[in-house]
Amino acid sequence: MNKVYVGIDLGGTFIKVGCFDSKLKLLSKVSAPTEAEKDARTVIENIAKAAEKSVAEAGFTMADVPAVGLGCPGPARYSEGIIDAATNFPTFRNIAVRQLLSDRLGGKAVVFENDANVACFGEFAAGAGKDVDDMVFFTLGTGIGGGIINKGKLLAGCGDNAAELGHIIIYPDGRLCNCGQRGCVEAYSSATNTAKRATEAVKKGKSSSLKKVLDEKGEITCKDVYDHLKAGDKLAKEITDETAKALGIVCLNMLHVTEPKRIVFAGGMIAAGDILLDRIRDYFNEHIWKLRKETVEICFATLGEDAGIIGAAALAKQAAD
Amino acid sequence: MNKVYVGIDLGGTFIKVGCFDSKLKLLSKVSAPTEAEKDARTVIENIAKAAEKSVAEAGFTMADVPAVGLGCPGPARYSEGIIDAATNFPTFRNIAVRQLLSDRLGGKAVVFENDANVACFGEFAAGAGKDVDDMVFFTLGTGIGGGIINKGKLLAGCGDNAAELGHIIIYPDGRLCNCGQRGCVEAYSSATNTAKRATEAVKKGKSSSLKKVLDEKGEITCKDVYDHLKAGDKLAKEITDETAKALGIVCLNMLHVTEPKRIVFAGGMIAAGDILLDRIRDYFNEHIWKLRKETVEICFATLGEDAGIIGAAALAKQAAD
Repeated sequence: MNKVYVGIDLGGTFIKVGCFDSKLKLLSKVSAPTEAEKDARTVIENIAKAAEKSVAEAGFTMADVPAVGLGCPGPARYSEGIIDAATNFPTFRNIAVRQLLSDRLGGKAVVFENDANVACFGEFAAGAGKDVDDMVFFTLGTGIGGGIINKGKLLAGCGDNAAELGHIIIYPDGRLCNCGQRGCVEAYSSATNTAKRATEAVKKGKSSSLKKVLDEKGEITCKDVYDHLKAGDKLAKEITDETAKALGIVCLNMLHVTEPKRIVFAGGMIAAGDILLDRIRDYFNEHIWKLRKETVEICFATLGEDAGIIGAAALAKQAAD
Repeated sequence: MNKVYVGIDLGGTFIKVGCFDSKLKLLSKVSAPTEAEKDARTVIENIAKAAEKSVAEAGFTMADVPAVGLGCPGPARYSEGIIDAATNFPTFRNIAVRQLLSDRLGGKAVVFENDANVACFGEFAAGAGKDVDDMVFFTLGTGIGGGIINKGKLLAGCGDNAAELGHIIIYPDGRLCNCGQRGCVEAYSSATNTAKRATEAVKKGKSSSLKKVLDEKGEITCKDVYDHLKAGDKLAKEITDETAKALGIVCLNMLHVTEPKRIVFAGGMIAAGDILLDRIRDYFNEHIWKLRKETVEICFATLGEDAGIIGAAALAKQAAD
């Protein structure tokens, strides 16, 4: 009998669901509104219906599904399967999401994980890390999320907060991060903070072609920084160098902690392309120790937006196997 | 039938061996010269004889031993069981230590690990971490070694270099470390570098009661720094604060990476006592995020010198179970 696996990416606005075969080949894809403003029962019902629809569209029934994977942004008590009060789900108060979805799906096993871990596992199972056992993963977006694969499994700590890699401090007493710490890599190298550092520099009077952008649009985005970098702007290069240096150093720190074979960057910012990746590698190679030649590979993710549904399905498969 | 486990701490000068019962209670302890200046065959023979002696002294025979644990300082290819060219074993060239010892002991299973990992596992199995599943371990000596316990097991990366925690960079472009990097925590907070920073400060003319030590002995040790700290010297306090700050920050970085329940410091430097431990905790609490209340415990190791033999025996037991 063929088995299929359901991967769910639960966002505040949309639910995305994929139905995958046992080789993680996408068979069908469904999207539905979350209706997070309504009560939790409605959200669970929307998830379940989308899951059932994806399975039906793939030509299977729920009896063919050994397990379902559900990823969503935090904060949540993932190991307990509970969302307390997440920003994206304003009506949720102490909701046992995993149990409710399992009950609604007739007792189906449900794996519940945070979105960065799920995307990490997706890249590991079917993307940029599919041929390695040990991997570190960073998403570069508004913040910096992370995931760690150790011997083929997501590394979980004693609670639900391992691999918060954006909050590794690399410049003690440096820039203030949203988390309250100073000098986190996120405070330098997230898309948001890359843009913010550019804006601050222009406002301080640094000469740059980005000044026109700020004057006209009232803001500088991370994409602007990379566009102007490619056009040869000196400030854009300085800003990018600082982004890349912080990422290069956090890569070598991770090498010394969990010793991955590969380090994978994902998120909107990787659209910058090789001009960013090469600089990260440069700083890594410049700062790494001389004790032995390191062979860790630093690369970009390959699954794009689908990493969430693939990773959730892959986690379901791992749990069911 | 009662089983016993043998833990071996292979140093450049002495071999220390302990024979333990299945609850890791020490039954007998043997020490013998390594004779590292002779050939590898002699060293293996010395190890085997000490192991056999420890078992006999405990009232058992080698038939009662399911496995033997062997810890030694690096560099070595631990996963392959090979010492290439370690500082402590000048005559060793590509020696298959694990296999040779196993052969000499009639095919006995031998676990081979680096000394910091072994001590870490000892503290986890029978010392400061015995009631937790997730732990991070630092040894503060000439350098800073490390170990990570994740879900009850030593974390191993893709090669033999995970948990090189002394080489986490916390001050990019900071002090030069022996490893070739700049700004490693080891370059600030090892016993050697704590003493070195004090010496540098005194030589630069900083007022301190340590000046007399330097003038009389020609050097300042780490113990001198803590002795003068306790006597109220201001420079000794500054030096200690910098040591503790770097350690506090590396603790919170490890919290964000592997999320341990407990962080354990070992090595000669912990003789400094609460005056050091309290400052590490202070810096940790001062710099940690505000996103949630962290409950990680920071404490000192409890096994002292025996951590090596206990950890090696505990690894043998884990492998045999």
